[in-house]
Amino acid sequence: VCADSLERVTTICVPDEQAREIVGSLDGIDVLVWNGKGSAPDLVSAVDMFVPGYSTEPDPAAAFEQMPALSVVQLLSAGVEPWLGLLPPGVVLCNGRGVHGGSTAELAVAGILSALRELPKFHVAQLSHRWERTSTDGLDGKRVLVVGAGDIGARIAASLTPLGAEVTLVARRAREGVHATGELPALLPVHQVVVIAVPHTPDTERMVDVAFLAAMPAGALLVNVARGSLVDTEALLAELRSQRLSAFLDVTDPEPLPPDHPLWDAPNCVLTPHVGGGTRGWQRRAYRLVREQAMRLHNGDRLQNVVGEAY
Amino acid sequence: VCADSLERVTTICVPDEQAREIVGSLDGIDVLVWNGKGSAPDLVSAVDMFVPGYSTEPDPAAAFEQMPALSVVQLLSAGVEPWLGLLPPGVVLCNGRGVHGGSTAELAVAGILSALRELPKFHVAQLSHRWERTSTDGLDGKRVLVVGAGDIGARIAASLTPLGAEVTLVARRAREGVHATGELPALLPVHQVVVIAVPHTPDTERMVDVAFLAAMPAGALLVNVARGSLVDTEALLAELRSQRLSAFLDVTDPEPLPPDHPLWDAPNCVLTPHVGGGTRGWQRRAYRLVREQAMRLHNGDRLQNVVGEAY
Repeated sequence: VCADSLERVTTICVPDEQAREIVGSLDGIDVLVWNGKGSAPDLVSAVDMFVPGYSTEPDPAAAFEQMPALSVVQLLSAGVEPWLGLLPPGVVLCNGRGVHGGSTAELAVAGILSALRELPKFHVAQLSHRWERTSTDGLDGKRVLVVGAGDIGARIAASLTPLGAEVTLVARRAREGVHATGELPALLPVHQVVVIAVPHTPDTERMVDVAFLAAMPAGALLVNVARGSLVDTEALLAELRSQRLSAFLDVTDPEPLPPDHPLWDAPNCVLTPHVGGGTRGWQRRAYRLVREQAMRLHNGDRLQNVVGEAY
Repeated sequence: VCADSLERVTTICVPDEQAREIVGSLDGIDVLVWNGKGSAPDLVSAVDMFVPGYSTEPDPAAAFEQMPALSVVQLLSAGVEPWLGLLPPGVVLCNGRGVHGGSTAELAVAGILSALRELPKFHVAQLSHRWERTSTDGLDGKRVLVVGAGDIGARIAASLTPLGAEVTLVARRAREGVHATGELPALLPVHQVVVIAVPHTPDTERMVDVAFLAAMPAGALLVNVARGSLVDTEALLAELRSQRLSAFLDVTDPEPLPPDHPLWDAPNCVLTPHVGGGTRGWQRRAYRLVREQAMRLHNGDRLQNVVGEAY
């Protein structure tokens, strides 16, 4: 232990009182509360790490002006799009990888199983007290393609495999056990379920286009738990209307989906309103990460989840 | 290879032509088609292994009278209740353990995730084009108790663990990694999800009674993918009506559930009409087992799934 680290104080700024409570007290670390909007608290000029609220959109430029000592922006979300290009030079951006991965993977698994086992149909039968025993599809022997081999993709694969599915992972670059996106044209036709679980970047924008969908076999299920803009909505609507494909979408383009949008009533399409992350208890997971990062910053250790390394 | 085994012919009897096709041809094995009802085919007196249909209920006594050479009854279901005590002396009963395990585990996982993530609620919102983003519960940090540590229980545990659940297995007798049913009173209060996946036997009849349900913590979810008679329906109804517990039931007592039964409309109760097993493709899995068992019988090898050993 060097004397310098014992004397130095690291200042972090979290968006609300609940966050401060969960972070608790940490030796050598001051915790301020500010969401980046309105008047800033005393000592804001000392802030080393700024944690914006999960779904608030402050004016970053105005906030950053008051934090000349800033070295890290720690997001609570996995997606980083709104922040790209907005940080002052030299400030490191870290995302919330791992905070929502479990719940997003969980929603993908829920959507796949609910679709294959026709739970919405049985729910409608229950509402009218009808015991209609029919044979449904199931995962056994199915091949599932997960586009995105990060935390979410790995959890989906681990959860589906014991149920009899054979899971193939795809990422930007091939590695042990993971195929490259360049192989998609060959992989899509032999998979009955395709899950999109990649971040939104210029490379992935509209990756699920007419050709991607056409390469999926008849009867296949598309699952999107990533971002709506990864999918060409018009192309997907055409495949749904012809009943060649079905879909489970937690994210759409646009969001929120306007009441008159045709996706609401498209055949074999189940929608949830972007609820993949943010299940109850996410704050506990999020501020466990913030705590760890603050301690790493204070101790001069390497930060986790630095954007650019994670993708 | 001994000369005797080359000359001996083993005769098996399957319930329909589709079954015979899937079993295909096997060296030294004759395959007859008979479902145990009506007039028997020639050579029925030579049958060594009888495979009754999946959901047919023949008159076993009349069928067995015509099969004096019978040594094995191979069921296609995991449950064996209707056959207990009905076999001629010396005839071995084997069940379909493993055939439906994957799809039954899959339905349990689908039911748990659908309930926690409130998919029925979002489905109703979709029907009226409402984008209502609300925070739901999720598996992360939850403790799941699976009563039944067989194939189904093991698959449920393997599927839920990557989603952040901590799974506890319970069986009749404790073993490495498995608790004994005697420990249930201590285990129930600390688990937020309880899955029933044990066979129906005199020991398990009504095991989920008033005391069992009362030991579950407020807000907990009961999942039954085994048999309706394992649960005291009146006791469960009381817990559902007070909204202390919720339930996902694939099996009920009685079955089919009459249109005026109160379970249909009980609060926080999702029902499916006994569709845990029998997903499309189950025949392929079932007759792969029959093929293997026929070859074991022919070669004098130890049979799999002998009832009494499996439980």
